Amino acid sequence: MYFASDNSGPVHPKIMEALARANQGHALPYGNDALSELAADRLRAVFEAPEAAVHFVATGTAANALALACLARPWDAVFCTPVAHVEEDECNAPEFYTGGAKLTLVGDGDRMTPEALEAVLARHAAGSVHNAQMGPVTLTQVTECGTLYLPETLLALCEVARRYGAPVHLDGARFVNALAALGCSAAEMSWKCGIDAVSFGGTKNGLMGVEAVVLFDPARAREFELRRKRGAHLVSKQRYLAAQMAAYLDAGLWLEMAEAANRNGARLAAGLRASGLAGFLHEPQANMIFCTLPRALHRKLKAAGAQYYLDGPLEGPDDEALPARLVCDWSLTSEQIDRFLSLLET
Amino acid sequence: MYFASDNSGPVHPKIMEALARANQGHALPYGNDALSELAADRLRAVFEAPEAAVHFVATGTAANALALACLARPWDAVFCTPVAHVEEDECNAPEFYTGGAKLTLVGDGDRMTPEALEAVLARHAAGSVHNAQMGPVTLTQVTECGTLYLPETLLALCEVARRYGAPVHLDGARFVNALAALGCSAAEMSWKCGIDAVSFGGTKNGLMGVEAVVLFDPARAREFELRRKRGAHLVSKQRYLAAQMAAYLDAGLWLEMAEAANRNGARLAAGLRASGLAGFLHEPQANMIFCTLPRALHRKLKAAGAQYYLDGPLEGPDDEALPARLVCDWSLTSEQIDRFLSLLET
Amino acid sequence: MYFASDNSGPVHPKIMEALARANQGHALPYGNDALSELAADRLRAVFEAPEAAVHFVATGTAANALALACLARPWDAVFCTPVAHVEEDECNAPEFYTGGAKLTLVGDGDRMTPEALEAVLARHAAGSVHNAQMGPVTLTQVTECGTLYLPETLLALCEVARRYGAPVHLDGARFVNALAALGCSAAEMSWKCGIDAVSFGGTKNGLMGVEAVVLFDPARAREFELRRKRGAHLVSKQRYLAAQMAAYLDAGLWLEMAEAANRNGARLAAGLRASGLAGFLHEPQANMIFCTLPRALHRKLKAAGAQYYLDGPLEGPDDEALPARLVCDWSLTSEQIDRFLSLLET
Amino acid sequence: MYFASDNSGPVHPKIMEALARANQGHALPYGNDALSELAADRLRAVFEAPEAAVHFVATGTAANALALACLARPWDAVFCTPVAHVEEDECNAPEFYTGGAKLTLVGDGDRMTPEALEAVLARHAAGSVHNAQMGPVTLTQVTECGTLYLPETLLALCEVARRYGAPVHLDGARFVNALAALGCSAAEMSWKCGIDAVSFGGTKNGLMGVEAVVLFDPARAREFELRRKRGAHLVSKQRYLAAQMAAYLDAGLWLEMAEAANRNGARLAAGLRASGLAGFLHEPQANMIFCTLPRALHRKLKAAGAQYYLDGPLEGPDDEALPARLVCDWSLTSEQIDRFLSLLET
Repeated sequence: MYFASDNSGPVHPKIMEALARANQGHALPYGNDALSELAADRLRAVFEAPEAAVHFVATGTAANALALACLARPWDAVFCTPVAHVEEDECNAPEFYTGGAKLTLVGDGDRMTPEALEAVLARHAAGSVHNAQMGPVTLTQVTECGTLYLPETLLALCEVARRYGAPVHLDGARFVNALAALGCSAAEMSWKCGIDAVSFGGTKNGLMGVEAVVLFDPARAREFELRRKRGAHLVSKQRYLAAQMAAYLDAGLWLEMAEAANRNGARLAAGLRASGLAGFLHEPQANMIFCTLPRALHRKLKAAGAQYYLDGPLEGPDDEALPARLVCDWSLTSEQIDRFLSLLET
Repeated sequence: MYFASDNSGPVHPKIMEALARANQGHALPYGNDALSELAADRLRAVFEAPEAAVHFVATGTAANALALACLARPWDAVFCTPVAHVEEDECNAPEFYTGGAKLTLVGDGDRMTPEALEAVLARHAAGSVHNAQMGPVTLTQVTECGTLYLPETLLALCEVARRYGAPVHLDGARFVNALAALGCSAAEMSWKCGIDAVSFGGTKNGLMGVEAVVLFDPARAREFELRRKRGAHLVSKQRYLAAQMAAYLDAGLWLEMAEAANRNGARLAAGLRASGLAGFLHEPQANMIFCTLPRALHRKLKAAGAQYYLDGPLEGPDDEALPARLVCDWSLTSEQIDRFLSLLET
Repeated sequence: MYFASDNSGPVHPKIMEALARANQGHALPYGNDALSELAADRLRAVFEAPEAAVHFVATGTAANALALACLARPWDAVFCTPVAHVEEDECNAPEFYTGGAKLTLVGDGDRMTPEALEAVLARHAAGSVHNAQMGPVTLTQVTECGTLYLPETLLALCEVARRYGAPVHLDGARFVNALAALGCSAAEMSWKCGIDAVSFGGTKNGLMGVEAVVLFDPARAREFELRRKRGAHLVSKQRYLAAQMAAYLDAGLWLEMAEAANRNGARLAAGLRASGLAGFLHEPQANMIFCTLPRALHRKLKAAGAQYYLDGPLEGPDDEALPARLVCDWSLTSEQIDRFLSLLET
Repeated sequence: MYFASDNSGPVHPKIMEALARANQGHALPYGNDALSELAADRLRAVFEAPEAAVHFVATGTAANALALACLARPWDAVFCTPVAHVEEDECNAPEFYTGGAKLTLVGDGDRMTPEALEAVLARHAAGSVHNAQMGPVTLTQVTECGTLYLPETLLALCEVARRYGAPVHLDGARFVNALAALGCSAAEMSWKCGIDAVSFGGTKNGLMGVEAVVLFDPARAREFELRRKRGAHLVSKQRYLAAQMAAYLDAGLWLEMAEAANRNGARLAAGLRASGLAGFLHEPQANMIFCTLPRALHRKLKAAGAQYYLDGPLEGPDDEALPARLVCDWSLTSEQIDRFLSLLET
C-alpha cells in the first residue's frame, strides 16, 4: 500500500532487460554511443519533431533547471504557479541555474489561466530596467495537484506568452500520464500548442532515472550541452540512460506504464469517492489524488502500513478532516489498492 | 582494443546483479532507503571514519564541484595543478558551484610539491580584501597523468595547507586504483594525511554511475545536502546508486576491479617499453599511460581499430613522435592488450 | 513642481561644502582615511551601537543586496512584502548577490503583519531539503507606499523572526524620514526592536550618493567587506562618500532635511485632502503620497509642468480617477507646493 | 611625497566646479538627465564612435566586470596576463559578474604577445564541451607594470583574437595616461585596433569617482544596462557622475591631467636613474615606476614620510635591494618629487 510517490516503485522489467542488453563491451562516453542516438531518434519521432534538440539527464530538477536556464536570462522573471515544482520543491535550483532569475507567481491555483498570465505579462511588458524582465513561462502537465491542462488551454496560454515574447517551458515529469489521460499525441500537447521546451519525464513512470529535455529550436542545443556539462549533469556512461529511454519509447511501454498508473489512480479515486468519507481537494485526472479523510481513518490506514503524505498530526479529534496526497505508480496491483480501500469500510 | 578511457567499459556483472536485487517493490526516495544506509555504512567502514558524512551523486564532476563548494567561499582561490580535472575538464563547473571561486594553478606538472604550494599559499596569506582569499587545495590521486602521490607527500601537502588554514580536497575518481597501486588503506590515503573531503570514484572502476563524497567533518553534511539538491543532483531513486556502491564495497570487488585495471596498465606499459618505440611522458603507476609513438605506428594502430587519445594529426612525417593517452579498465583482457602490443612489432 | 522622486533634488549646500573641505591633498584609499573613520564613528554613535560594523556604498540597491547576501544562503528564502523595493525595483540584484535566494512574498500590502509572517515562517520551518530554507526577513521603513511601521510592530515582527531563527534586515532608504515622523531614535527603530542589519539611506535625503550598511553583529564585518569588493562596490576615493555621511550626521543635518521633506509631504497631503479631489490609496505618513485624482486634473497638472508618476494614460474620460505617486524632497519650497495645489482649484 | 597610488590625490578644481554647477534644482534620475547625455556625447566624440554605447559606473572594477560579463558566457575562458587587475586585484568580481567564467593566464609578464595569445586560443579552439570555451581577451593599457602596448601590438593581438572569434576588452583605468604617452587618439588605441569594449578610467586621473564603459557595438547596450542595474551600479543621481565626465572631456582637461601625471612619473624616474641606486623592474612608460632600492634607503624614505608600496620588511641587511612601486598622479608638484629625490643623495 505504497502511495507516497510515483518515484518509489521498482523499475519495469523490460527496462532492466534493456540495461542488461546495453552492458556489452565498450561504448563511447558522454552520449557519443549508438544507444544515445537511437533514444534521441525515438524521442524525436514520438514528438514528430525531427529537428528537435534532445538531451538526457538523470533528474527532473536538472531537466527543469537546465531548460529554464536556456530560456531565461539572469535578470528575467520566470512565470509559474504557486504550487509549481520549480517554485516549491527544487531548493532554489532554478534560481541557481538561471543565475538568479526571479520566480514570479501567477494565479493562486494549480493551473494558470490565460487571463491571469496576460495580466502579469502585461505588467512586466510595461516595466523598466529596474524590474525583472520578461522571461519564460513554465507550466506543469500533469499539474502538481494531479489535474490537467486541456490542449486548448495550453494553446491559449502559449498564445498569450507569444504575444509578449515569452518562451514557454513544460515541466512534464508526468507528461506521459497526461498524454494517456487526454488521449492526445506528444506533438499535440507540446509544440503544436506553441511550447518551446519540454522536460519529458521517465523516472516517475517506471525508469531507473532518466529525463529528457526536448528543445524544439535546435539552435539551443549547444548552449544546453554546455550548461549540462557545467552543471555536472553530463554522465560519462550515458548508454545506460539511453538504454532506458530507448526501451521506454519502444513498443508503447511508456504509454502502457502511464495507463497502468492512471488506471490505478482512477480505481483508488473511485473507491474513495464511493466511501463517502473523502473530500476531494482537486478533481483527480491522472495518478494523483488530493483529498481529506477523517483523522481516525488516517490512524487506521497508517497503522495498517499505508504510506502516503498526510498533512497534519495523527493526534487530535477523530472527526477532523486532514488532507492527504495519494499517488499511484504503474507497479501497484489492484489487490494493493483494494486492500487500502477495504480499510475505509466500517 | 579500447584504451580511450576507463569510463567506457561495461558494468561489472556483480553490480548488475545488485541492481536486479535492489529492484524489489517500493523504497523510500531521496536516500531514505535501507540500501543507501548500507552503502554509506560500508563506505564509512572502508574509510575507518564512523562519523564521516557520506553522500552519493551520479557524476565525478558533481562530486568535485559540490565538495569544493562546501570548502570554498565565492571570493576564495582554489588551489590545483594545471592539469587538474577541475581546471581542465569540467567546463567551469567548480566556478559555477562555488559561486565564482578562482582556480589558481600551483606548479607546472601533474603533482603539486609542498614547496610550490607553500609559496602560493604564503602569497595569498599576505593578501588583502582586493585579492582572492585563502581557499581549499584540491589534489588528484591517481593524478590526471597516471602518476601517484605517496602518502608521505600527501601528508606534507596537507601540513602546508593546515598551516595556512586551507582545507584539502582529494579528487579520487581513481582513488581505488591508487589504493591498489600503493597498497595502503583508504584512511591512510585520506584523513590520516589530513585530507578533509574525498571524491570517491566508482564510475571509472566498473560501476554504472556513482561517486561518493566523503566529508570527514560531519558538520558539513547539511550544507552538502542542500547544495546537492540545489544542484539537482539528489536522485529520487537513490537505491539504484546505493546498490552499486554497496556491492562495490562488498567482498573486495572495488579492489579487485582496480587491481585488474592496474594489472592491465602494467602489462600494456611493459609491452610498450619492451618495444623500444615508446617514449614515456610520465612514469605509469596505475592504469593510464602517456607516451609517444611514431606517427606511422599510430596509423597502423588506428587502422587496426585501436581506440585511444592521440594528440596530433595522422598525416605528417612517419617518424615524428606523437603523444598518446592509453587507459586500461578492469574489463580489458590480456588478449586485447597483447593484440595491441603485437601491432608494435615489425 | 518636481514630485517624481526624492532622488532627484540637489545636494544640500552643507554637503557640497563638506566635499570641498575633504578635497585636500592625498588620502589613503578604500576607506583607510580619517574621514571614513569619522563618519563610521558618527553613525555608530547615532545608532548607540559602538560595536556595529559600518560600511559605505554608493547605491541603495547595493546596500540592500549586500546586506541580504550576508544574511541569506543561496538556498534560502528571503521574506518580503509584494511591494518591497528588493522585489520590485532591483532587477534581481538580491538574487544576484545572494547567489539565487528566493524572494518569498508575505501578505499582500505595504506592511507585513506578525501573523502573516508567522504563517509563512512556520511553513518554511516544516520544510525539507527540497524547499527553500529559512532565510532573512526584510522590512522597509518608510515603506514603499509611504507608510510606517510603529516600533512596537517592528518589535513584534522581529520577535516572530527570532523564534524561527530568521535574521531581520531593514531597508532604510528613508530611515531618517521615518525617525523624523515617529520621533524615535535610530536605536529604538533598529536593534532595540531586534533588527540585525540596516540599509541606512542618504541619497534620497539630500546627499550626492551614499548609503551605509549597519551590521549590529561585528562578526559579519569581514564577509561584508569581501562581498562589497567582489561586487565592485568598494570605491577607491572613499573620503568623498565619508565626507557626505560625516556632514549629514553632524549638527542634526540628517534630521533637518528629513523633517523638511516630511513637512513638504504633509503640506501637499493637506492641500490634496482639502481639495476634495484626491482619493488616498495609503495614509501618507512621511514624504510620499499615493492618491487618485481625476484624469482631467492630471492633464492640467502635467500641462503646467508638474512632474510625478502617473499610473495610466492621459487620454480617456475626464472624470476617471487615476492613481499617482507624489514624493517630496527636502529642497522643495512651500511656493512650489502651493503652486501645485493652486492648480487643483476650480 | 605620496606615491602609493594615483587613486589618492585630490579631485581637480575644475571637476569640483562642475559638480557645483550641476547642483541646481531637480534632474531626472538614473541617467535620464541632460548632463548624462552631454557626457556620453563627448565620450563618443572623443572615441570618434558616434554609435557606441556609453555607460557610467563608479568604480573601475565595476567597469571591468560588467564589460567582461557582456562579452563572456559563464562557461567561457577569459584570457588575461598573470598581473592583470581583473586577475589579481578584484576579489573574484569578474568571476562573480560573468557567472563563473575562468580567468586563464596568457604568458608570464605584463604584456601579452600575439604568439602567446595564439597558442592559448588555438588550444581552446580545439576543445570540447568539457573545457572552458572561447571567451574574451582582456588587455590593460597602461599595464599594471607601468608599461605600454604599442598600437601595432594591440592591432596584432586583436587580429589573433578575431581569427578565433574572441572579442577584446581593454582595461583602460589609465587609458588617458597611455594616450598621452603614445600621442595617439582614443580611436587609434581602441576600435581602430579591433577592440570591442573599453573601460575608460577617470578616477585615477583626477575625478572623484567615475569610469565609463564604451561598447563599440551598440547592440550590447541593453544587456549592459540590465547587468549594471542588477549589479547595483546604476546610480540614481547620475548627473554628478556625468558632470565629472563632461568636464573631464572638455577643453582637454583629461589629457592635461594625464600629461601632468606622466611628466611627474618621468621626473621621478629620471631622478631615480640618475641616483644610480635604483634597479628598474620595468621600463617606466607612464606614471608608474617599479624599481628596487637598497633597504637602508627605504628606511630613510619611509622615515621622511614618503608613501609608496614596498615589497619586503624594513628590517634586514642594509644593502639588500627591495622592490617598490611608485605612482605619480597629476597633483604632485615638482617640489614634492624633488624632495623625494633629494633623499636619495648621500
